[in-house]
Amino acid sequence: MKGISFNTWVYGSFPTWVPSYTLDNVIVRLSDMGYDALEIGCASPHAWPAYLSAQRRREISQLLQSKSLKVSSMLPAPGGGPGMNPASPLEEERKYTVEHYKDVIRLAHDLECPTVLYIAGWIVHGTTQQQAKEYSRAGLQEMADYAKDLSVTIVIEPTSADSNLIESADDAIELLQATGRQNVKLMFDTFHVMYRNEVPVDYVDKMKDNLAHIHIADSDRMPPGQGRCDYKGLIQALKRIGYDGYLTMEIGFDKRSADPDWYARTSLEYLRELWK
Amino acid sequence: MKGISFNTWVYGSFPTWVPSYTLDNVIVRLSDMGYDALEIGCASPHAWPAYLSAQRRREISQLLQSKSLKVSSMLPAPGGGPGMNPASPLEEERKYTVEHYKDVIRLAHDLECPTVLYIAGWIVHGTTQQQAKEYSRAGLQEMADYAKDLSVTIVIEPTSADSNLIESADDAIELLQATGRQNVKLMFDTFHVMYRNEVPVDYVDKMKDNLAHIHIADSDRMPPGQGRCDYKGLIQALKRIGYDGYLTMEIGFDKRSADPDWYARTSLEYLRELWK
Amino acid sequence: MKGISFNTWVYGSFPTWVPSYTLDNVIVRLSDMGYDALEIGCASPHAWPAYLSAQRRREISQLLQSKSLKVSSMLPAPGGGPGMNPASPLEEERKYTVEHYKDVIRLAHDLECPTVLYIAGWIVHGTTQQQAKEYSRAGLQEMADYAKDLSVTIVIEPTSADSNLIESADDAIELLQATGRQNVKLMFDTFHVMYRNEVPVDYVDKMKDNLAHIHIADSDRMPPGQGRCDYKGLIQALKRIGYDGYLTMEIGFDKRSADPDWYARTSLEYLRELWK
Amino acid sequence: MKGISFNTWVYGSFPTWVPSYTLDNVIVRLSDMGYDALEIGCASPHAWPAYLSAQRRREISQLLQSKSLKVSSMLPAPGGGPGMNPASPLEEERKYTVEHYKDVIRLAHDLECPTVLYIAGWIVHGTTQQQAKEYSRAGLQEMADYAKDLSVTIVIEPTSADSNLIESADDAIELLQATGRQNVKLMFDTFHVMYRNEVPVDYVDKMKDNLAHIHIADSDRMPPGQGRCDYKGLIQALKRIGYDGYLTMEIGFDKRSADPDWYARTSLEYLRELWK
Repeated sequence: MKGISFNTWVYGSFPTWVPSYTLDNVIVRLSDMGYDALEIGCASPHAWPAYLSAQRRREISQLLQSKSLKVSSMLPAPGGGPGMNPASPLEEERKYTVEHYKDVIRLAHDLECPTVLYIAGWIVHGTTQQQAKEYSRAGLQEMADYAKDLSVTIVIEPTSADSNLIESADDAIELLQATGRQNVKLMFDTFHVMYRNEVPVDYVDKMKDNLAHIHIADSDRMPPGQGRCDYKGLIQALKRIGYDGYLTMEIGFDKRSADPDWYARTSLEYLRELWK
Repeated sequence: MKGISFNTWVYGSFPTWVPSYTLDNVIVRLSDMGYDALEIGCASPHAWPAYLSAQRRREISQLLQSKSLKVSSMLPAPGGGPGMNPASPLEEERKYTVEHYKDVIRLAHDLECPTVLYIAGWIVHGTTQQQAKEYSRAGLQEMADYAKDLSVTIVIEPTSADSNLIESADDAIELLQATGRQNVKLMFDTFHVMYRNEVPVDYVDKMKDNLAHIHIADSDRMPPGQGRCDYKGLIQALKRIGYDGYLTMEIGFDKRSADPDWYARTSLEYLRELWK
Repeated sequence: MKGISFNTWVYGSFPTWVPSYTLDNVIVRLSDMGYDALEIGCASPHAWPAYLSAQRRREISQLLQSKSLKVSSMLPAPGGGPGMNPASPLEEERKYTVEHYKDVIRLAHDLECPTVLYIAGWIVHGTTQQQAKEYSRAGLQEMADYAKDLSVTIVIEPTSADSNLIESADDAIELLQATGRQNVKLMFDTFHVMYRNEVPVDYVDKMKDNLAHIHIADSDRMPPGQGRCDYKGLIQALKRIGYDGYLTMEIGFDKRSADPDWYARTSLEYLRELWK
Repeated sequence: MKGISFNTWVYGSFPTWVPSYTLDNVIVRLSDMGYDALEIGCASPHAWPAYLSAQRRREISQLLQSKSLKVSSMLPAPGGGPGMNPASPLEEERKYTVEHYKDVIRLAHDLECPTVLYIAGWIVHGTTQQQAKEYSRAGLQEMADYAKDLSVTIVIEPTSADSNLIESADDAIELLQATGRQNVKLMFDTFHVMYRNEVPVDYVDKMKDNLAHIHIADSDRMPPGQGRCDYKGLIQALKRIGYDGYLTMEIGFDKRSADPDWYARTSLEYLRELWK
């Protein structure tokens, strides 16, 4: 296991606008708390690529280095104004989405981040499932080819709670195989697994050959240990397969009422104790 | 009163990704239901300006005309990837936001829509309230000057439930006065008023000299009549001041579980009966 | 039955501070809605006697007359800074409370209000129940003697939900008898009756010989008809005994989130239909 | 940090009337439990100034001394009969409020209490926000001048959960600056911060130059550690700025069902462990 990481959504303006902190402030907070890494949500004010000049990227890299914090992964923001749905019926949106993912992959490279998450999109009424899957597969292939040259891995995340296209482990594996690219891997999020009333340790079993990333979120997107997920069993399963990615929390971001530090601190203390 | 209108968020991918329908489909549904107008949320797949060519705009206009549906208003999508926070500490974001509003104003003009909503932004920790207000005011002035030539009115909406800058009627009035532009007016949303535990009819009283638009949403963003808001009193108050804008629902969009047609139909029946 | 009345707490600053309206504004709102009378809560900004000059009292009387609204009753505000507990262990407080009730009785007289409510107080730990009852009885006798000359009736209200002294119909009847004054009568509040899991129509039966006032409030202090109280049965019982007081709502005041007009309008429509 | 203190509301009759204890009894209970200090709520039966003779004040001082308990602070009771709203539209109320605060400041001086809290008031519908702010500022200046001679500090508390005037750190800072008095400082209450869905440690950051007092209350006004507030982070932040005021609980007082000793004891144990 590479370390424990925390996704920045709850500290940013997506999807709830406040509370919101600058990326620099979040880096300092998470590092001081004892995190090994952070997962950067690529929405403003943290990391909308077009707002980050070469100079800013160097500053962020230096701050990360001085605070001994890695970037475990990056995650584009779907569902905002430009949509960012790779399975959109709009050709303009599909093209824009591929270009945006390339920008995020480039940003990942600039911040020495090895992994970018892929949200495979959703079906707008009127598009067939088959057509949506083909759109998404074609987009992913183009992204993967671009990422390969920059040594970035793309991981497919089933997102049942939010979408209607890649919902399960099986859906993700099918897309992985259809894509046929070496730098495309798999991940899952315990919250999305529970949304389907499925069992997280079973996802370890199904995905084990290609499992490169994981999102930790208890029921209701609470910190691990605050809900009904069996994290003890999950950690054992991950050790058993020799999981060597990060444990990354993605929690609290759906609630304006969340105190981000409480989510981050509570999670870290719980997982440090559990993984020992 | 100009008519009854319905905001398209619940039919689109912002902020919940599904269910989602094309704009054409939404126009047909709302018109068939008996609406006078719709308020277009400017996120994909409905109306991200960059995805709408001149040809598409003509097609949409023709469809609207053939279905006898007006566009009451337009609303940009804040909090997604590019942020769209006019009070952002990032200069790049503030500039982009102003340009995006100009695109939306242009789109409004192309679809014969008289009104664009202004979401005044939110304070990212580290920005002072005073500085945030100045950023927002400066952005609004530039938008208003652009809108003036296109005969578009911009209405300021206090959004207490989502933001921390323009929260109340008093905040909005203060911003209106600071802006000093004739084509800037006021609106309120009954849901945001109730989030502050304030009283919608009192907002009519406070804003009456400049009230140009209104969002109708009962508690929990339910259709009017399903919660604890006194809509009978509100309609009386609007009649008393000779309100001549639209009654526009903005509801259900925060719940993936929402059946959009139920929200639209229930609201329309309730308001038609009440305004008689 | 003399008419339908509405208590002003939910429109004032006691106990929740906002929303709050001036007494003049409340008079206009309730009259326009169709109420016959209002019950004035004697806290600022409505009717703290010391803040109401002779001139202001005349103005209020004239406004009431011009809006054809009666004052059904008046109610002091217990539990605030000066306490107003007639059973207090502090002699200073007991004296102040009697003097304050006299001020309220005088105010009632000035506004042609026939009835003042008596909140019999509560036991502070260390006072015996017997002692507390004697304090309360002695205070009430002094108030009643003062009220007699001004033709004001005092009604004892059991307040089980808030206090621990006069909790039931039996407690109130016992106090009535101990007091032995002709201008002391009884009342009850359906909310307090339900707090004890007792039955409102049974209170009509027990109190019928001296029932001079009634508070209508459904479970959770909601408008009548929104909860689990059998108001149809209650109205029948009141008609059966020839009740000739007011039906007075005292609701919503414990919730800052209450829209006062919704409470008042919903209640009035419900009771007008029911009493017909 | 000067010590750990507990506010007496939950032991008194404001705003819920029972359970209620005499001030002497509360002093003994809190001292025996191990508290360093108490914050006295200035409502009867504890400390309505007019009920406390010079003799009683001496007795209280002696009891405090013999039990080694300090008075950290005093807090007037707003929203009761006399209102005590410094922003009231009633001139009589504004004057009375200033006089009452002077009485409380005098009482603080008599009991060697260094700090009096300022509740800045609320807007009654019809008063403009600007007018209300000016009323409140003028009242505060007069209080501060009186307090200066008695070496008492007045601290402004944003009370978003109850009021609509001074809601945030920014609002309080603005009022502090407008007042321009050296003995006026700032405080915040974690409950009110969370009501706004803001983050308590950020208030330390914003108020740090003038932070003289703090109220500790977890979500739902529960003891610290029972809710979702990050008290570990808060204590670290207070240590970082060298905070030298009291940690004062103000909890449970909104619930008649509260067992006051449970609230006091649970809080003390949690904070003693955390501050070590």
